[in-house]
Amino acid sequence: MNYRAVFNIIGKVLCIVAAFLLPALILSLALREQAAAIAFAVSVAACVALGAPLASIKPKRTDIFAREGLVSVGLAWIFVSLLGALPFLLSGAIPNYLDCVFETVSGFTTTGATILSDVEHLPRGILYWRSFTHWLGGMGVLVFLLILNPLSDKNTGEGMHLLRAESPGIKASKLVPRMKDSATILYLIYIGLTVLEFVLLILGRMPLFDAVCLTFGTAGTGGFGVLNDSLASYSPYCQWVITAFMLLFGVNFNVYFLLLMRKFGKAIRNEEVLVYVGIVVASIAVISISILRFYETIGETVRAAAFQVASIISTTGYSTADFDRWPQIARTILVALMFCGACAGSTGGGAKVIRVLISFKAARRSIYKTMHPNSVRIIHVDGERIDDATVSAVGAYMLVYFIITAAAVLLVSLDGKTFETSFTAVVACLNNIGPGLGGVGPMENYGSFTWLSKVVLTLSMLIGRLEIYPILLLFTPSVWRKIHR
Amino acid sequence: MNYRAVFNIIGKVLCIVAAFLLPALILSLALREQAAAIAFAVSVAACVALGAPLASIKPKRTDIFAREGLVSVGLAWIFVSLLGALPFLLSGAIPNYLDCVFETVSGFTTTGATILSDVEHLPRGILYWRSFTHWLGGMGVLVFLLILNPLSDKNTGEGMHLLRAESPGIKASKLVPRMKDSATILYLIYIGLTVLEFVLLILGRMPLFDAVCLTFGTAGTGGFGVLNDSLASYSPYCQWVITAFMLLFGVNFNVYFLLLMRKFGKAIRNEEVLVYVGIVVASIAVISISILRFYETIGETVRAAAFQVASIISTTGYSTADFDRWPQIARTILVALMFCGACAGSTGGGAKVIRVLISFKAARRSIYKTMHPNSVRIIHVDGERIDDATVSAVGAYMLVYFIITAAAVLLVSLDGKTFETSFTAVVACLNNIGPGLGGVGPMENYGSFTWLSKVVLTLSMLIGRLEIYPILLLFTPSVWRKIHR
Repeated sequence: MNYRAVFNIIGKVLCIVAAFLLPALILSLALREQAAAIAFAVSVAACVALGAPLASIKPKRTDIFAREGLVSVGLAWIFVSLLGALPFLLSGAIPNYLDCVFETVSGFTTTGATILSDVEHLPRGILYWRSFTHWLGGMGVLVFLLILNPLSDKNTGEGMHLLRAESPGIKASKLVPRMKDSATILYLIYIGLTVLEFVLLILGRMPLFDAVCLTFGTAGTGGFGVLNDSLASYSPYCQWVITAFMLLFGVNFNVYFLLLMRKFGKAIRNEEVLVYVGIVVASIAVISISILRFYETIGETVRAAAFQVASIISTTGYSTADFDRWPQIARTILVALMFCGACAGSTGGGAKVIRVLISFKAARRSIYKTMHPNSVRIIHVDGERIDDATVSAVGAYMLVYFIITAAAVLLVSLDGKTFETSFTAVVACLNNIGPGLGGVGPMENYGSFTWLSKVVLTLSMLIGRLEIYPILLLFTPSVWRKIHR
Repeated sequence: MNYRAVFNIIGKVLCIVAAFLLPALILSLALREQAAAIAFAVSVAACVALGAPLASIKPKRTDIFAREGLVSVGLAWIFVSLLGALPFLLSGAIPNYLDCVFETVSGFTTTGATILSDVEHLPRGILYWRSFTHWLGGMGVLVFLLILNPLSDKNTGEGMHLLRAESPGIKASKLVPRMKDSATILYLIYIGLTVLEFVLLILGRMPLFDAVCLTFGTAGTGGFGVLNDSLASYSPYCQWVITAFMLLFGVNFNVYFLLLMRKFGKAIRNEEVLVYVGIVVASIAVISISILRFYETIGETVRAAAFQVASIISTTGYSTADFDRWPQIARTILVALMFCGACAGSTGGGAKVIRVLISFKAARRSIYKTMHPNSVRIIHVDGERIDDATVSAVGAYMLVYFIITAAAVLLVSLDGKTFETSFTAVVACLNNIGPGLGGVGPMENYGSFTWLSKVVLTLSMLIGRLEIYPILLLFTPSVWRKIHR
């Protein structure tokens, strides 16, 4: 293990977080929110105090391998969460540090699960930071690091392991040969879409502060709002804008890159996105029919159904209605969408549409193989051959995923809440959604869980955002052994 | 598709069922249960009337392949269920034919889910037949056919495809070279254990009729009882005997064969059985602690916990307590055990311990491979190498299994029952257990579901018992195309 390189990366990431805390500090000062301002100032100091010495450690070798990449990402996210939680604690917004960490991890992992029952009375600086964690966590703070610091002069290798470990999907592909340029393009697309949504919300006369926070929440597919009823009280226009952008941020960013490159044909034939759109349309249709009697007009019905489907499949977690009170079929569809999640290479969570797609193709193949034991059948996606190693990796990923779900549900069950609450709490956290059903429904919160459940759910959020391995490896003793290469 | 061979097999199976209906007919006559006697007589006649002509179809070619094996088993089970349901309908015990089929499929698949709220007033002949379906379905009626009729003179091939399609597990292995002898040994072990349990229950002064029915229910890991409170009112001794035998019938029968062959060392080192025992002991320990406050003595607590764990992991489904009222952690453990199920090659259902074991090993390997992308690691079970094709097949099986679970939960959700009820109803049927939680808890029944849910749950039971493919293939158009080989 190249410890020096790992420490170096973590140090740099903490310095970036310190820089990103400054706008919140300035906002607090401008609004004369004294407690919040002091909290942010101390937090910035803490990040720099810990980050600068670590960043000054010069690695003897600049080469890092898959292992270092995964460990760096896992540890960096944990450090960022522990320090990013300080403003909540120091400002007195959340009195308990574990709750602060839960809220911060929920922010960075773009989950949006909260332990707060009343957010409207929080200082605005704190609310801004809470929503900004979504935006930063959505694309990833290490991907951002790659823009500033290519780690080494070589174009390949090092950075790739970081990008791969932090970006969701079965394989992170560089858009262009140079790592730094790929990361820059991803962030430019991200910023472009963010600005576009913000402008559209302002045109819809949403208050400036709300528009900023909700745009961060949508872009990262997070789900923290600034009002206690989430998004129920905004205008239909604003709800439709957010519905559209939740879906857009759930699309594989490679598709936007293809559109920018004017490769329209290739972009619109992307199989994962087509399946994603298909699932969305079908789910909206079925849910609309099932909830017709709850609304006065068809327009209202479709808006509620579309908003909720977009919110859950993109793993954002905003709500305009208490879907926990919807008919069972609508609730079950939403739970199924929680597992499915958004596209790979988006800011959304969940298992990812591409994995579900490959799983279905592998399942179909296995049925065929049962009939024809000696047949050889290749799985294709987008016309390209998916090799058996990838199919196996997807299968293994799904298995580990279900095993972790089961283990987490068992531990959370110790709290004695209903099966529905325990089960959907884990599903909502592991897939970075936020609200579940029953005791963690859209009108409820996670405040009443015991510390053990909060720890389990916090780890679940990290495991979900970083796609299992970076966190799981931290608990694997052999990772920490020194191996001479 | 060799249709003639398929029809021939189905015909013979129906004749076997006719023969197995005779004891129920004789019992009804002896007890002067007129309606039941007439019902059984008509049912026997119907089986013979349909079976004899089919059995007389002589296949032009005696060779059957995997496809024919799977289709024969799938169709035979459906025919047997449709005809085996006649006694319930004709005797007036269950007025609705769909309910009769549900109850019969529940019997043959050894699920034990019932639509009846009061079984104590049923004619004894009907109760006997209801329990006997468990015993016949446990080892399999087509495996029985192999004893009577080796299908062809060759020792390999044909029969193997039937055994493989009807027996649970990742690979059905012949115990001895001749198919007919393997099937005979399996049935002899089965009969031996059945007789042993019956004798032990009689020694415990259980009424003769109850002992017969409960032994059938235990041996097949079914779960139909003869009293409305399942097994709560029997003596502690009888409950312990049944606990032990539920666990014994969940063990891979190959182990008993090894014991008979005096290969003790190999038998006790069987990895699947060791894991099975480990899960059982750990589950009993945790559940005992969680339910301590419900019982007066530790003995009572452990008996209740052990009985329920044995009942669920073996997928029998008997109950001595209303575990739906137990603490959430105990209920969640029981749901996890429902998925796990018993050993391959036993009469139990579920995903099977061997698949869970291989899944865990594959998951561990994938974590290792993430760190060391170029490594090659072989999975071993019982010291033997598991090839990648088997690992992939297990992964694909688990995926199909979860997809079917999700689809069935969605359809059952249309009934509008709670998530817990819909989810555990599907899990309990698909894994051939019987009772679930909430509205399908041990003190409830499946009577209140709509016809659509009953059809979905009936198919789930068949899919679970036959391990997916034989039933799924029946819905695959390409199976029915004639292919010239």
